[in-house]
Parts: sequence; C-alpha cells; structure tokens
Amino acid sequence: MEPLKITFIGIGLIGGSMALDMKRLFPNTKRLGIDQNAGHISEAIELGIIDEETTLDQLADNDMVVIAIPVGACKKILSSVLDNIGKNTLVFDVGSTKASLCQEIANHKHRNHFLAAHPIAGTEFSGPKAAVENLFEHKTNILCESHKTDSKLLEKAVLLFTKLGMRLSYMDPIEHDRHIAYVSHLSHISSFMLGKTVIEKEKDERNIFDMAGSGFESTVRLAKSSPAMWTPIFEENKANVVESLKEYIANLEAFKTWVENDDFQKVYESMANTNHIKNILNGITSKNNK
Amino acid sequence: MEPLKITFIGIGLIGGSMALDMKRLFPNTKRLGIDQNAGHISEAIELGIIDEETTLDQLADNDMVVIAIPVGACKKILSSVLDNIGKNTLVFDVGSTKASLCQEIANHKHRNHFLAAHPIAGTEFSGPKAAVENLFEHKTNILCESHKTDSKLLEKAVLLFTKLGMRLSYMDPIEHDRHIAYVSHLSHISSFMLGKTVIEKEKDERNIFDMAGSGFESTVRLAKSSPAMWTPIFEENKANVVESLKEYIANLEAFKTWVENDDFQKVYESMANTNHIKNILNGITSKNNK
Repeated sequence: MEPLKITFIGIGLIGGSMALDMKRLFPNTKRLGIDQNAGHISEAIELGIIDEETTLDQLADNDMVVIAIPVGACKKILSSVLDNIGKNTLVFDVGSTKASLCQEIANHKHRNHFLAAHPIAGTEFSGPKAAVENLFEHKTNILCESHKTDSKLLEKAVLLFTKLGMRLSYMDPIEHDRHIAYVSHLSHISSFMLGKTVIEKEKDERNIFDMAGSGFESTVRLAKSSPAMWTPIFEENKANVVESLKEYIANLEAFKTWVENDDFQKVYESMANTNHIKNILNGITSKNNK
Repeated sequence: MEPLKITFIGIGLIGGSMALDMKRLFPNTKRLGIDQNAGHISEAIELGIIDEETTLDQLADNDMVVIAIPVGACKKILSSVLDNIGKNTLVFDVGSTKASLCQEIANHKHRNHFLAAHPIAGTEFSGPKAAVENLFEHKTNILCESHKTDSKLLEKAVLLFTKLGMRLSYMDPIEHDRHIAYVSHLSHISSFMLGKTVIEKEKDERNIFDMAGSGFESTVRLAKSSPAMWTPIFEENKANVVESLKEYIANLEAFKTWVENDDFQKVYESMANTNHIKNILNGITSKNNK
C-alpha cells in the first residue's frame, strides 16, 4: 500500500537516493524534507528528490520518517522525533552504528514505532547531488532489535525495503557494531591513513600522479569519504574501532618485522593465506551485481 | 618498423598482455615464449598469446626480449640473457623495482642493450589467462637510466611503448624505488593486512558476506594479488618498504590515540586534510580513462 506522506530528515547520499527510488515506486507519495543545510533543501527540490520542506513539529500525519543524518546527530534528535509522531508513523534510521542509538531510546514510550536499520550501500560521495537511483538494489539491510518494533510497522518497513530491492538480515545491535567495525569502519581508517601517508611523503603531487595506478586508486578510494559522516561513526563505535585498529596495526607490525628480518617465507605465507579473500569477495561481487 | 622476432620470458599477466597487443600491432612478428611453468607455455600457445616455445640460448637473432617474471628471478637471469643476445637485440624488463636490478648489470658488456622499464599497469590476477588486450593504453611507463641504453635501441623501445598507447616518464632507479614504495607497494601491504585482520576476526564468513559492501571490496581488492610476484618486490625494495610501513603505522597509531582520547576534532581534521586525495585521484582516473 502506497504511503501518503514521508519525511526525510537528511537529504544527502542515502536519504536522497531513497527519496528518488520512492518517487519512482510510489508516484503519489508526498516526499518532505528536513536538512540543517538550507542549501540542501533547495538543491533537493530542484533535483526532484523531495517535493517540499517541512519541520520536526509536522510529523504526526506522516506514514514514515527516514532519518539519514550522521549517527551522532541522529542519536541527539531521535527522542524528539518519536515525541512528535502520530499513531501510524514508522521511523527508521540508516546509520552505521546501532548499539548506543538503541540504548538511547530503549525506554521511549514510542520505542515500538522505531526500527534500527543499516542499509549496506553508499558511495564515497555526499550531499543531494550524490543521490542516485537504485542505490539499494541487491544490497543488504541489517535490521537490529526488530522484535521491539510494532509488528504492523515492521511489516510496512520490510515491504518498503523489499521493494527497494534489498535483502534483509537481522542482528543484535552490539553484534552489529562489533562486526561492522571490521568490514567497514576499519577499511575507511586504513584508506584514510594510506592517503595521509602518501600525501605527507609526496609533497610534489606530480610524482603521485605519474606513478600511481589503479591499485592505489582502489585502495584509497574511501579516503574521499565525508569526515562529517565518519567522525561520529568512529565516536559512536569507539571501543570496537580501537580494537580492530589494534589488531590491524599488530598485523602490519608483524609484516614489517618479517621484511626487516628477511623472513620472506612468512611474508609469502601471510599473503597466500589472505588470498582466500578472493572467495569471500566473489560472494560480495555476485551479490552486488545480481 | 616491425620487429621480426620477439621473445617473452614470462608469459603471465604483463608479458602475455604485451604479446597480445603485439600480435595486433605487428601481425608478422614471431612471438616466442620462455616460462618455468610448462603449463603456461601450452596455455599461452592455445590462447594465441605466443606462437611457440624457445630457450635462453636462442636469443641472438631476436629483435627484442621482454622479461616479465618476478623481480628476484629477473635479477638472477638478466646477466645470462645479456650474454646470449645478438648485436641488434633490445632487452627490457617490466618489474616493480629498479635500483638493485640496474646495479646488478651496471658493468655488463651489453649494458647498453638493456632498458629498465616499469609499466604502471596490471590487475590483481596472474598467469596467461589473466592476459588482456589494451592493458597498457593510457598508462605510464617509467624508464630508468635510459641514457645508459644505446640510442637506437632506446628509440625502438620508445616507438613500441608509444604504439602500445603508453605515456613515458623518466626517473632515476633509486628515486623510482623510493616513490613506488608509497604509491604501490604500501597499498598492497595495507590491503593484504586488512584482509588478514578481517579474516582472522570473522571466522564465520557468512557475516563478512552479509555485512561487507563495495567499500570493503575496493579496499581489499589488492589482497587477491599473487604472493609469488609480490614477495620478491618487498625483498628487493626492503628499505623503502620498511620506511613506508613505519610511517603508515605511525599514522594509524596517532589516529587510534585520538579516538581513545576522544579527540574527535583531530580525527575530523586528519580526514578532511586527506580528502585532498580526491584531486589527485581525479587526475589518475582521467588519465586511465582517457
């Protein structure tokens, strides 16, 4: 059943892409927007991403509210969003950390109107201009504590995610944060610090430009990501991020020691064992391209 | 002018791809092959990459000899290759390290028949099956100590590389090895160790498969690379690799400390400053796609 009214809080890459898909899927739905950045609102209206602006005190007659802002900001406003909704409103977020958010609103009287969601989708770009159609197709959406969401509202969310082409996965929020630190947050830090190291070393950009190939490009791609989005993620998931970084640094230290000690048998073996990542990546690739 | 006879020592990704391009560019040239792996020879003949097998003692009437084997093996055989060539034979390698190779044959009586080359091209795959046409188009080829190559033979090489679509860059071999440690060798280690850290943590692959997106995929792509190719590169470029790893680890340590100390302003700034990599990468992308 087509929703009549949806508000997007945050109209960047994720919120904007979802709004674009909804326009196609539900042409009669009114898509409203809230964004701290006034430029984003006018840009999003111009690009046909949303129909018009709204405010937090006008959510009561909404069918859905999608919160797609940095995780720290989301944690700050979620309570007042839940204060302002009506009896049929579903609220879901799309952030990269889940544990402290679920904790924050655990005792809210409208807890059962909320669904903690994490669509594993995105690019290294941000803002309304980064919004693209079909971003979520064949991607995984991790739903946390879904048993705490009212079953009718959950059904509405599942139907929407399915229409967006997503496969659903269900996890405990603490487990979610622990795993995602490794497969997502650590990749971003690894990439940012690689970019930093190379920039610091190579003051003369011309050398990088001449010598860097597609391998370097692929490895530092994530270093283009938005610091405004990623800083709060590392803050929210501090303990897991620090733990994953410790293990990563320990592996790099071991590798360095092998090279220093001419133990190239160990260097070879550690790479050969890691080649096994091929099979895992083939799984990801086939999933993303299916 | 079309060469009559070329021998490829090593018929994997790089040698094989070059042989395929030469088939198209110079249909009348005889392409011969040498490979330690007998399976590679028959595979390469079957795939139309080379015409037939040859041996190191039959190089005298060759116009060109292309050495495309791991850098350690190349250093071992280059002298005997130069011993066996004729008075018009050009020999070039395509390896990722240059300083110790140039050192090794500095005093060879046929030093001026050799050109140290490093085409910045490749994929994470290996072997004759990985060979593809047009791999070198719009890519950079770094030539080292080109003044030590006989000018007529150098001209022949430059003509070939230009026909393959490459842009040429000239560097000192020691400078080459110092820079390439940062923009290529370090990326590979960073990627391999990221893959290792995640595999170690996530024994249950299903979780990786469900939660990993295209960002993780891009960052660990290089961890699929061939350990047989990369181990000798790290061995040959040991000092620079260790140096670059030290700086990378120091940056990761600093980042970890900022997170631990809740200094998220520093976290933000380090990422914002590194975002500058966008402009550099745009240069690489436009170069690779031009």
